[in-house]
Amino acid sequence: MMKFKSPPVNSLSLEFLTEFSISLEKLENDRACRGVIITSAVPKIFSSGLDITEMCGKNVEHYAEFWRAVQELWLRLYGSNMVTVAAVNGSSPAGGCLVALSCDYRIMAENPKFSIGLNEAQLGIVAPFWFKDTFVNVVGHRVAERSLQLGSLHPAPEAHKLGLVDELVPEEKLMEKAAAVMAQWLALPDHARQLTKTMMRKAVLDRLVAHREEDIKNFITFVSKESIQKSLRMYMEMLKKRKS
Amino acid sequence: MMKFKSPPVNSLSLEFLTEFSISLEKLENDRACRGVIITSAVPKIFSSGLDITEMCGKNVEHYAEFWRAVQELWLRLYGSNMVTVAAVNGSSPAGGCLVALSCDYRIMAENPKFSIGLNEAQLGIVAPFWFKDTFVNVVGHRVAERSLQLGSLHPAPEAHKLGLVDELVPEEKLMEKAAAVMAQWLALPDHARQLTKTMMRKAVLDRLVAHREEDIKNFITFVSKESIQKSLRMYMEMLKKRKS
Amino acid sequence: MMKFKSPPVNSLSLEFLTEFSISLEKLENDRACRGVIITSAVPKIFSSGLDITEMCGKNVEHYAEFWRAVQELWLRLYGSNMVTVAAVNGSSPAGGCLVALSCDYRIMAENPKFSIGLNEAQLGIVAPFWFKDTFVNVVGHRVAERSLQLGSLHPAPEAHKLGLVDELVPEEKLMEKAAAVMAQWLALPDHARQLTKTMMRKAVLDRLVAHREEDIKNFITFVSKESIQKSLRMYMEMLKKRKS
Repeated sequence: MMKFKSPPVNSLSLEFLTEFSISLEKLENDRACRGVIITSAVPKIFSSGLDITEMCGKNVEHYAEFWRAVQELWLRLYGSNMVTVAAVNGSSPAGGCLVALSCDYRIMAENPKFSIGLNEAQLGIVAPFWFKDTFVNVVGHRVAERSLQLGSLHPAPEAHKLGLVDELVPEEKLMEKAAAVMAQWLALPDHARQLTKTMMRKAVLDRLVAHREEDIKNFITFVSKESIQKSLRMYMEMLKKRKS
Repeated sequence: MMKFKSPPVNSLSLEFLTEFSISLEKLENDRACRGVIITSAVPKIFSSGLDITEMCGKNVEHYAEFWRAVQELWLRLYGSNMVTVAAVNGSSPAGGCLVALSCDYRIMAENPKFSIGLNEAQLGIVAPFWFKDTFVNVVGHRVAERSLQLGSLHPAPEAHKLGLVDELVPEEKLMEKAAAVMAQWLALPDHARQLTKTMMRKAVLDRLVAHREEDIKNFITFVSKESIQKSLRMYMEMLKKRKS
Repeated sequence: MMKFKSPPVNSLSLEFLTEFSISLEKLENDRACRGVIITSAVPKIFSSGLDITEMCGKNVEHYAEFWRAVQELWLRLYGSNMVTVAAVNGSSPAGGCLVALSCDYRIMAENPKFSIGLNEAQLGIVAPFWFKDTFVNVVGHRVAERSLQLGSLHPAPEAHKLGLVDELVPEEKLMEKAAAVMAQWLALPDHARQLTKTMMRKAVLDRLVAHREEDIKNFITFVSKESIQKSLRMYMEMLKKRKS
């Protein structure tokens, strides 16, 4: 099991992303490890998504390094040979939602105060194409189109209805249920399961691999715009005020 | 707001299509206009679809001009930067359904006498690939395959169940609801919403752009066949008899 | 109507596949025949899928011949110009499920003891890409990904809920219902219906046609592996024990 523990909100900073990728790589190479449950040690938050401070007022090299780390994590997680189960025990916007979407199965605490979604549009930014591809593979084209345009954060019951999460359970049963799901998936022969997973996900993984440098350039161009920097600063101000 | 008003049934004639495209273009270029609600001023009919008289007994140049106008409207509407909401206040077969499918959101009067669908197969003709692509993006492959093969016209409740429309409301609340939905969509920052929409729809739009002339040729070949002309004449006779 | 009658379990042996393809070809060329209902004359089993004895302990030439026959059947059935209705009156794993998925409409006896699914992963093997493509076209990407990875056999009510079958009816009403569905589909003009079907299925059919020899080679390589042979032998032993 892997527990996100980066208070206050498990934001995916460059450091966090790098550690996460390294941990995944180690587990991937550990033949004794066949599956991983991803959950949060921080109350009420699964992950708040990409760390906005990494995208604000930094130089081009930093943006490139950060974005490559985001790509790297997704390539490893979405393409993992392990069984990956997300035990979503709190809210999970943007990059946090991507982490959940990249797993094989999503269980969420049935608390309507917890929400999940790719809400980038709310911040004035656009989810990259591979966030979108991952989302479409889970919920289909129409649900994704509407949800992405509105930047919706779906409360747990709605997320379940849309197919964004596979199952809701009371919060205190979440880990028990995740373990049961893991056992069910591990009962399958690894090799056949892995080849099947690859068959389902390869097209979308290959698309980022083929356009990786271009995607980094796009990110840098986008995030370097003064209008975007302004949006992000305003958003951070708002978050700071909320906290205090 | 844009109200179709071409009695008796809002059929999409060459003239109507041309005016519709020009109006859309004007709104698109008017920076004060960020969204459009499409509805009908004709009772019980949203739009009866392409005007069959334009496809019957005319010459090749006319067919080409007509078909280019159909393509043009769809390219403008499906690719619009504005928020587009269809307030479907009556039946909406074939081309009328395409107009609704091309919007960002579809609200329909919950009257089971109103139906909507791509019913081309019932007339012995085939919906073009870009009608199909637009339909699949809304309802998914399976629902589209079955509905297109059967040329189904779905009563409002069924259309809602299949995801062909997003919401049903009592007829008298339709415009109020459309305005509320529009307000919700306009609350998003334009730029991020537009880029997201483009990301979702570009593949399908590009496909027609790449095959536009070929698609016109196909239409001309198809519609020029004596068997098709006969089907269309029989269909028009039937409509005339019904009216009288 | 076509009734599978190859006791004990209608497994798709080389002989059975060849006869099935020839029968389909004859019907296809018979202009008086516009549709076919596929069902089973064997109680409780629609079809048990590919005959494992054809994949076990045989030589490379045999594997190639067998796999080409599987491809041939699917190309004929999924691409059929006739209306094809599956009346699934028993369990239908793996290749049996593929036959049902390749029809235009699936009706299943509402007996929860009957199950259907592409359960290859349970046997340690992988469904080929065109099984997957056919499945995704029916149930969408997410349901297919989960079901294929788990090698799930879905009891009839669950299969209906997932969209794997279109309708459940009491077993004694199955043929009556299949005939009614056939009548509904045959009410459409053949030509428009066939062109529409081709438009929906061509991409997936073309993909196998383009990669047919490669797919045969992959099958041979895979099935010739000692580990796979061992899995299949164990599975056959288990089936034998169950029977006795």
